[in-house]
Amino acid sequence: MVKRILRIDMTNLKAEFEDLPEEYNTLGGRGLTSTIVAKEVPPTCNPLGIHNKLVFAPGIVTGTTAPTSGRISVGGKSPLTGGIKEANAGTNFAQRLARMRIAAIIVEGKVQGNDYYLVKITNDNVEFIKTDIWVGKGLYNTYKELFKEFGDKKISICGVGIAAELRGAMAGVSFNDPEGLPSRYAGRGGLGAVMASKGLKFIVIDETGAPGVEIADQEVFEAGITKVRDALLAHDVTKKGGALNLYGTSVLVNIINEAQGLPQNNFSSGQDKRAEKISGEAKAEAIKKNGGVRPHFCSPGCIIQCSEVWTKPGGKDPVGVLEYESVWALGANCGIYDLNIIAELNRACNDLGLDTIETGDTIAVAMEGGVIKFGDGKGALGLIEEIRKKTPLGRILANGTQFTGKAFGVTRIPVVKGQGLPAYDPRAIKGIGVTFATTPMGADHTAGYAIAPEIMGVGGKVDPRDPKKAEISRNLQLATAALDATGYCLFIAFAILDIPEGLQGVVESLNGVLGTSLTVDDVPLIGKQIIDIEREFNKAAGFTSAHDRLPEFFKDEQLPPSNEVFNVSDDELDSVF
Amino acid sequence: MVKRILRIDMTNLKAEFEDLPEEYNTLGGRGLTSTIVAKEVPPTCNPLGIHNKLVFAPGIVTGTTAPTSGRISVGGKSPLTGGIKEANAGTNFAQRLARMRIAAIIVEGKVQGNDYYLVKITNDNVEFIKTDIWVGKGLYNTYKELFKEFGDKKISICGVGIAAELRGAMAGVSFNDPEGLPSRYAGRGGLGAVMASKGLKFIVIDETGAPGVEIADQEVFEAGITKVRDALLAHDVTKKGGALNLYGTSVLVNIINEAQGLPQNNFSSGQDKRAEKISGEAKAEAIKKNGGVRPHFCSPGCIIQCSEVWTKPGGKDPVGVLEYESVWALGANCGIYDLNIIAELNRACNDLGLDTIETGDTIAVAMEGGVIKFGDGKGALGLIEEIRKKTPLGRILANGTQFTGKAFGVTRIPVVKGQGLPAYDPRAIKGIGVTFATTPMGADHTAGYAIAPEIMGVGGKVDPRDPKKAEISRNLQLATAALDATGYCLFIAFAILDIPEGLQGVVESLNGVLGTSLTVDDVPLIGKQIIDIEREFNKAAGFTSAHDRLPEFFKDEQLPPSNEVFNVSDDELDSVF
Repeated sequence: MVKRILRIDMTNLKAEFEDLPEEYNTLGGRGLTSTIVAKEVPPTCNPLGIHNKLVFAPGIVTGTTAPTSGRISVGGKSPLTGGIKEANAGTNFAQRLARMRIAAIIVEGKVQGNDYYLVKITNDNVEFIKTDIWVGKGLYNTYKELFKEFGDKKISICGVGIAAELRGAMAGVSFNDPEGLPSRYAGRGGLGAVMASKGLKFIVIDETGAPGVEIADQEVFEAGITKVRDALLAHDVTKKGGALNLYGTSVLVNIINEAQGLPQNNFSSGQDKRAEKISGEAKAEAIKKNGGVRPHFCSPGCIIQCSEVWTKPGGKDPVGVLEYESVWALGANCGIYDLNIIAELNRACNDLGLDTIETGDTIAVAMEGGVIKFGDGKGALGLIEEIRKKTPLGRILANGTQFTGKAFGVTRIPVVKGQGLPAYDPRAIKGIGVTFATTPMGADHTAGYAIAPEIMGVGGKVDPRDPKKAEISRNLQLATAALDATGYCLFIAFAILDIPEGLQGVVESLNGVLGTSLTVDDVPLIGKQIIDIEREFNKAAGFTSAHDRLPEFFKDEQLPPSNEVFNVSDDELDSVF
Repeated sequence: MVKRILRIDMTNLKAEFEDLPEEYNTLGGRGLTSTIVAKEVPPTCNPLGIHNKLVFAPGIVTGTTAPTSGRISVGGKSPLTGGIKEANAGTNFAQRLARMRIAAIIVEGKVQGNDYYLVKITNDNVEFIKTDIWVGKGLYNTYKELFKEFGDKKISICGVGIAAELRGAMAGVSFNDPEGLPSRYAGRGGLGAVMASKGLKFIVIDETGAPGVEIADQEVFEAGITKVRDALLAHDVTKKGGALNLYGTSVLVNIINEAQGLPQNNFSSGQDKRAEKISGEAKAEAIKKNGGVRPHFCSPGCIIQCSEVWTKPGGKDPVGVLEYESVWALGANCGIYDLNIIAELNRACNDLGLDTIETGDTIAVAMEGGVIKFGDGKGALGLIEEIRKKTPLGRILANGTQFTGKAFGVTRIPVVKGQGLPAYDPRAIKGIGVTFATTPMGADHTAGYAIAPEIMGVGGKVDPRDPKKAEISRNLQLATAALDATGYCLFIAFAILDIPEGLQGVVESLNGVLGTSLTVDDVPLIGKQIIDIEREFNKAAGFTSAHDRLPEFFKDEQLPPSNEVFNVSDDELDSVF
């Protein structure tokens, strides 16, 4: 049985399995979503209209025994940026889909009328089930009930929440974590709103009878994944007992704060002593005390295990992971330095189907606009609850940072291409700013993680204050695009950037699955193909170099305490691609 | 005394008169505002940030005895479209400014803190007066009080209202009419928000001691304006007792409804029998009955006199003019067919400083989003009042059609470059659709009024349903840009398109003022220079041909009763420029 595309037509409530076209044979993840979106979606279409499509694709090695590879890419035209978008998440949903040999799900059309549907996918059948009963409900309880209803052994769930019902441009696409919590997000760019716009609220997949991923050359594959595993187990960042394993992604709080690049109060300062209270170290301790789980994997087969389950004392009200990005966005960036409050905010985001980064940026901008005060945790929670209540204020917030900034007359709006900036101030750490400005995705740290060489000394060591960063950002963007196609988690990059055998192993594992004979030198080429496709789409959608820029306040305003400005020239930015 | 530029620095509350640079000597109106904006404003700047500027410029013959020439252009980078913007109005403010030999006012910088200022300009002095007392107040009463305070003989007022205080992207710049009502608007594109963002709330000009417009060759000038006057008095559309004079711009209601191109209920149909109730004919009768004024000039020296003063019975609560665009936007497009309600809505718009076209489009989209029902006049008034109360809902609405559509999950959003469409459905009347799509201004009927040849048989006669309209739109856009520089009202075009001597007279009057030797053949070249500058600005701001498009629903959805779609090809659109 060859790999398949599952095409779901929401207009007619019909679904069809198609053989994967030969030209897509070696594509996966972001490579496949971006290729399909570019081929099938008119670049100038309304992202929430009938011509947009939503594409799901597991990575090339996803569903195999390759370590740390349970990633799924979600693609479409973004209602937040107006450009092409790939957001990805680690979840067993990805692995099951891959084992069912579904290389991609393409959701197209839109339901006539206002009904929402749950689409249940088994190995050889697709069922459309009206699901209006769950409209307006939080995802934590909904997922629990859906797992009960559909059996919890072999199923995974993908869904959108109330934010998406509002067509909010910061609505993410949620996937279950191993506990069944709605905490794994393809969060960025509002793809949740695209899913809801089609009348699709949940996808439940049941892999019973799935044939598993076909592996062209088992020997090559095994040799490859052994090298990947060895590299992950050897590198300080990724090994058991390493930084990510012990403290999760929040290990970065102290590090980036130390580097004077942890944005506080809507990017008004790069450092605050109180950040320690919300550090990875502090969090790990609290989880231990409260009876949560740490470390923990987001999907089976992960070696790094950076994830966790945050709970209230006694293991109550599990949230799932509190990522660095979420802790920063809902914490320091809002002047909030209390993990309990941050966890509550994060839980509300997961419950409503919100991207935590965009939510934190949005709340901070609302604070700057005078809606509530910086540091007001209760107020922040109240703002998120406005979305649940679908009030006008909630509708403003659900549309993200730029929208909220405009609504409240704020001019310091930290976005690129309409997407809110992640947890690094580009004035203090300029390479990541180059990535924010130039990636086709809008401000996205995962698109070319210059923090690795600039702060962590991984893959080389460069001065974060040096404004010549086009080459570093470009190389990382190409490598990342390739990695996003493989299904491996981006975090294996820490190991394979420093350990050549690890990278070799990645390539061998791809060759093992695909029967190809790629070399390490092909990796940036694969990345370039993907980014070329994405940039071409964006160009046709109306993007120019004028959009590859940071907001003017990063150039005009010095960032305390370093007093740096974003002094990367436009020419340097334009030389990235 | 040569002509001057008055540069107002709101950051330092300083003002300076500068001699008009020689290269600006023959420019006026839109020609001058667009040239200055392109030269001094960085195209990628935040429209509400410190780098944007607001420019006021009377036309070349404004302030002279040339008939129907009391126009002022207001320019800047638009917070609604993100591109360059020129909006213009007919008002004695323009004439006084010209007679003070102020070719342009350039407002730059922004007040530190939250205070608002009134800037009082006399012939040789500028005064900054704190005006926080008028924040949050309606403009009708405010203008009345300001006229009292500053003396009403030789002064004119320009101001922004509550919508601009919110930085709403549909906030217009208001000017007084001859009665002192705040009813003359440079409405489009949110330039009111730009003015407010600088901390500037009012400009009061007092022309006492003004030297008057310098005329280089009085004889040539007089000969020219005589020809213009003769043409205006001869043409059916512009003469005394002609269509505009008798019924105002609303004479178009029945005509466009007949042509099946009068959009109803957010562009869902092109015709409705009830439109007759809000026609120019019905309105003229009501004004007569109620004791209003009709006909009436918006600024002294107008021959056409299309304006009026609508009042409640007994001449109470004067509104000012009810333009065709306003009657359509707040009426038919919202399913409202009652002139009394429409007048109340229009009064609320004037009072809050709102562009009536954008307001009507916004309310209609809110209706489509289920906020209130189509036809609910009381509800519509309630929505506008939300802006006065500065509620979250009011903040949504104040940001215009596209913003409101996004907030309420609407996909049928009638905008181009973010600006709401005027009163012509481009499916039934395609040439005006070409102008909407391609003008640098965003959807703007005044930028190239193809209705003239398509519907009125002025300047030729073409089939409105024929999709080959690039050439007509281009020619009209060039002629219009030139006309917008002269200071003559656009409505003289009806006469001079049909009467060659009229056009000759316009050119002679320019030569008379400027001492130039322009010919009729130079007119499109002048227009092209202006549009080239504007398009270059927009290109640098990030605009491409992808933005020269109508929303997809005009292509996807047939318009009853003609069942036409907008079938102008992208190639045809791209061939305009």
